[in-house]
Amino acid sequence: MSQPISQFPVPEVADLPEDIRERILTVQDKAGFVPNVFWALAHRPDEFRAFFAYHDALMEKDSGLTKGEREMIVVATSGINQCQYCVVAHGAILRIREANPLIADQLASNYRKADITARQRAMLDFAVKISTAAHTVEAADREPLYAHGFSDDDIWDIGAISAFFGLSNRMANLTAMRPNDEFYLMGRLAPEDKG
Amino acid sequence: MSQPISQFPVPEVADLPEDIRERILTVQDKAGFVPNVFWALAHRPDEFRAFFAYHDALMEKDSGLTKGEREMIVVATSGINQCQYCVVAHGAILRIREANPLIADQLASNYRKADITARQRAMLDFAVKISTAAHTVEAADREPLYAHGFSDDDIWDIGAISAFFGLSNRMANLTAMRPNDEFYLMGRLAPEDKG
Amino acid sequence: MSQPISQFPVPEVADLPEDIRERILTVQDKAGFVPNVFWALAHRPDEFRAFFAYHDALMEKDSGLTKGEREMIVVATSGINQCQYCVVAHGAILRIREANPLIADQLASNYRKADITARQRAMLDFAVKISTAAHTVEAADREPLYAHGFSDDDIWDIGAISAFFGLSNRMANLTAMRPNDEFYLMGRLAPEDKG
Amino acid sequence: MSQPISQFPVPEVADLPEDIRERILTVQDKAGFVPNVFWALAHRPDEFRAFFAYHDALMEKDSGLTKGEREMIVVATSGINQCQYCVVAHGAILRIREANPLIADQLASNYRKADITARQRAMLDFAVKISTAAHTVEAADREPLYAHGFSDDDIWDIGAISAFFGLSNRMANLTAMRPNDEFYLMGRLAPEDKG
Amino acid sequence: MSQPISQFPVPEVADLPEDIRERILTVQDKAGFVPNVFWALAHRPDEFRAFFAYHDALMEKDSGLTKGEREMIVVATSGINQCQYCVVAHGAILRIREANPLIADQLASNYRKADITARQRAMLDFAVKISTAAHTVEAADREPLYAHGFSDDDIWDIGAISAFFGLSNRMANLTAMRPNDEFYLMGRLAPEDKG
Amino acid sequence: MSQPISQFPVPEVADLPEDIRERILTVQDKAGFVPNVFWALAHRPDEFRAFFAYHDALMEKDSGLTKGEREMIVVATSGINQCQYCVVAHGAILRIREANPLIADQLASNYRKADITARQRAMLDFAVKISTAAHTVEAADREPLYAHGFSDDDIWDIGAISAFFGLSNRMANLTAMRPNDEFYLMGRLAPEDKG
Repeated sequence: MSQPISQFPVPEVADLPEDIRERILTVQDKAGFVPNVFWALAHRPDEFRAFFAYHDALMEKDSGLTKGEREMIVVATSGINQCQYCVVAHGAILRIREANPLIADQLASNYRKADITARQRAMLDFAVKISTAAHTVEAADREPLYAHGFSDDDIWDIGAISAFFGLSNRMANLTAMRPNDEFYLMGRLAPEDKG
Repeated sequence: MSQPISQFPVPEVADLPEDIRERILTVQDKAGFVPNVFWALAHRPDEFRAFFAYHDALMEKDSGLTKGEREMIVVATSGINQCQYCVVAHGAILRIREANPLIADQLASNYRKADITARQRAMLDFAVKISTAAHTVEAADREPLYAHGFSDDDIWDIGAISAFFGLSNRMANLTAMRPNDEFYLMGRLAPEDKG
Repeated sequence: MSQPISQFPVPEVADLPEDIRERILTVQDKAGFVPNVFWALAHRPDEFRAFFAYHDALMEKDSGLTKGEREMIVVATSGINQCQYCVVAHGAILRIREANPLIADQLASNYRKADITARQRAMLDFAVKISTAAHTVEAADREPLYAHGFSDDDIWDIGAISAFFGLSNRMANLTAMRPNDEFYLMGRLAPEDKG
Repeated sequence: MSQPISQFPVPEVADLPEDIRERILTVQDKAGFVPNVFWALAHRPDEFRAFFAYHDALMEKDSGLTKGEREMIVVATSGINQCQYCVVAHGAILRIREANPLIADQLASNYRKADITARQRAMLDFAVKISTAAHTVEAADREPLYAHGFSDDDIWDIGAISAFFGLSNRMANLTAMRPNDEFYLMGRLAPEDKG
Repeated sequence: MSQPISQFPVPEVADLPEDIRERILTVQDKAGFVPNVFWALAHRPDEFRAFFAYHDALMEKDSGLTKGEREMIVVATSGINQCQYCVVAHGAILRIREANPLIADQLASNYRKADITARQRAMLDFAVKISTAAHTVEAADREPLYAHGFSDDDIWDIGAISAFFGLSNRMANLTAMRPNDEFYLMGRLAPEDKG
Repeated sequence: MSQPISQFPVPEVADLPEDIRERILTVQDKAGFVPNVFWALAHRPDEFRAFFAYHDALMEKDSGLTKGEREMIVVATSGINQCQYCVVAHGAILRIREANPLIADQLASNYRKADITARQRAMLDFAVKISTAAHTVEAADREPLYAHGFSDDDIWDIGAISAFFGLSNRMANLTAMRPNDEFYLMGRLAPEDKG
């Protein structure tokens, strides 16, 4: 009954363009496995390149949001969008970024009940509004964010990460992208448990 | 920032009625800890008794549904209802019942993409309809269930479990019931990992 | 075209367990007829016992809410959940409790336009939120209730009644439970009309 | 706590234009009281005239739908739109038209569970779709109606009655129009009860 | 692939009642063509008369709202109701009334982002609430309107125009009413462009 | 009352990175003006580059969908997402691509009533489902597309365009991106009208 990686064709490594093969090998070296999003999107090399360029522009750069906070946005909005791949894969990354084995499941199921700060809560309220009702967002929605010290550039980051993963969620649901089994346990064990 | 067990008063063990203390000690013996739902609901002994009597009548008896399948219903509907406690706690139980470390996160995020049989999928479609739009359920909704061999009594079970955990989801959200930390890792490690 | 009591089997009196037969005979003595919820749920004796134990724990005990106010919660939330049985049966009980022939139809169709106090309105706003969007309920939702003098225990009652009848609404829709004809006219006639 | 007839000004009889006063006196003669919709809309004589002309064009003319069936459409759609005035007032008319004391409460709470024919059910499915999601209605939606013998003109009637009472529901909610106390009991007593 | 005027029969001019033929000829003289709503509704002369009487009572009379503002309500609510005929036809009228070639497309797609005054924004917020959730409208919803100088009679106008075009939207979707090709370009060209 | 291009900072041409300036000058040469999306996104050069790379990968390449059909997807989904910028800007492009001055307004208001083929209708049904309920999309949703001759790669295109413009819609609503005035009239005049 186990589902395939994608409901669309998945290329062989040998058939990949050089730059994409390299990116995949790099991530494999770093993570120990290749997240299935790389395989699924490699079906379309140009879209693959744009997708990861967009991803890196938002998730890897310096920002007023920590990398962990950015993953919080991904997990909370992906939970609401019922995107299995993003919840499981980014849940793993979030646990590692925050060194917190509980936070991902808390945010994915109901971000209002998670162990987060009031500042992070305001961040997620805005991110969720962009994800689910962007047409109603107005200047006034920034006020609670300013009150917690977020700048306009931080607000762009929050909104853009939510918007980008709205795309990602839809691609994962379109392709029925399967999360790698490895993600489920990542970041759940304290160092001593793993030793 | 860690949240309390409940936003309502939680009784001391010493103050519990005898039968409730006994039930709590029994579960502690068996599970190694006391799930917070017991503490949170013990604030109301009569409701506690009725709640667990109802729970046991549905979840412990013989049925055409396996115990694992019954937990699938709980996890899938609780995910849609955004009930953090039920997703985390029953996700743990489901992993153990099915000896499958992936199934709970799959069902909680999007049951349509989980590694389940077509029969289980039909079961969950019906359970989710009872949970989210029971007023539209009609005799015709039983046809796909009959086609998979479910009896009328099985259909009652599916619907009643969905309905009961709709109550449970609302109580957990009313009280902001906090899942025990222990649940998050339960059932995620294969026997050899644990040894 | 008249619908049956339930789309599931309904037991004969002779086949009922002793305690359930007794409960049914008691209610018949008191009400003059047996509400169909007793027949429909008697198909499952253990669930029947738990259901009515839960019901009584919430609806019969002493509370900061009058018995009439508790029925207001049932009728308003059941109207929104489109539960025909609960609207008709508890509408009858509400009319009698409040000695008000208009209140049930007002609350079932739109509780915002009913002849109730501001305190009762706050109570129903909270009950409806628990019924329709419990995952969004937070500590701040209690403030309007405190302002009207409700205690934390009253708030639990409001939420728990709403949650329990959410279960009841789903069971009634699952079984297509038919309201007894007797309910429709109960409490609509002033004493002199009946004389 | 009793609500006024309307949250907008209600004219005195003496101040009414002649034709409107006459219509009001005629309805009073016939019904024994003046339904509040006449008072509330009389605040705007031109709209009053157009409203009742539209009403009569749909509800009083010959049609493939009986007058009772037309009231079924009003009650079912008004229940979904949470229009207290229309549910209560047209519920009364429906009971009388159908000589059935149960039908209005059944349809207002959940039309899928009412004692109606399959033909009437198809009629109400279409009416409800026009009321709640008219933008999705297409030629294919007429097929189930043709199958029950409805003509294109009957289908116009079903849709137009649903659309007109969508207007009526909104006017009643805008003005917080109060149903007359008299409506609640009308049509609930069999002739012998009344004698 | 071009769609017909209506999915219901459209009468010949020769078959029209005298008053309806006259109205149609008058509008043709004034506009240079006959908007299809006249043809589609002429299938039902009595409803035609009531519809246009209602329309004129709201849209042609003196009011605290300009004629352009009234068309803003029509376009904003029809956009949300996905009524193609009303968006296109009243979008044309709005452009002409306001001598603004941009305003209709702005309001039809997202009224929150249109070049309108704060007063007009408050007007549209109320109109949209009547159109989409009239059952939740209460006295408190008038406060922002009073703050912008709207009177109770203006508020009736806002609500009634929204309610009437809710009917109109549903009739247009029921009949699949086709906007005349002429509407699309009307009011888009500045006088010098047309010269 | 006219709104700014973006609620975030918009860079000066002189401050743009070379490649971005070049792209902007190229589009200006071709279109005669610079669509505001270029100015608004230039605030973030890396995201700008990824956004347009993604856009071009989907909208400029060879595909089983014509360029006009791809714009149909953009306009229909952006209308539902209430994205003013995308409806107005891509509506203009669609009119030009299809040499059809009516099609954009038809699709933006209600794609079910537009002058399109049955094949295009199936395409838009799938695109809208990806945009509004991607979590429910399954293999069975491809059947109607196969029946109209769409390949799996075409289906990816439909889904990916819908997903990408879901991102675009959210960015436009986040920034309150203003459509250029030039778009409103583009493609509305037949060649002879313009000559």
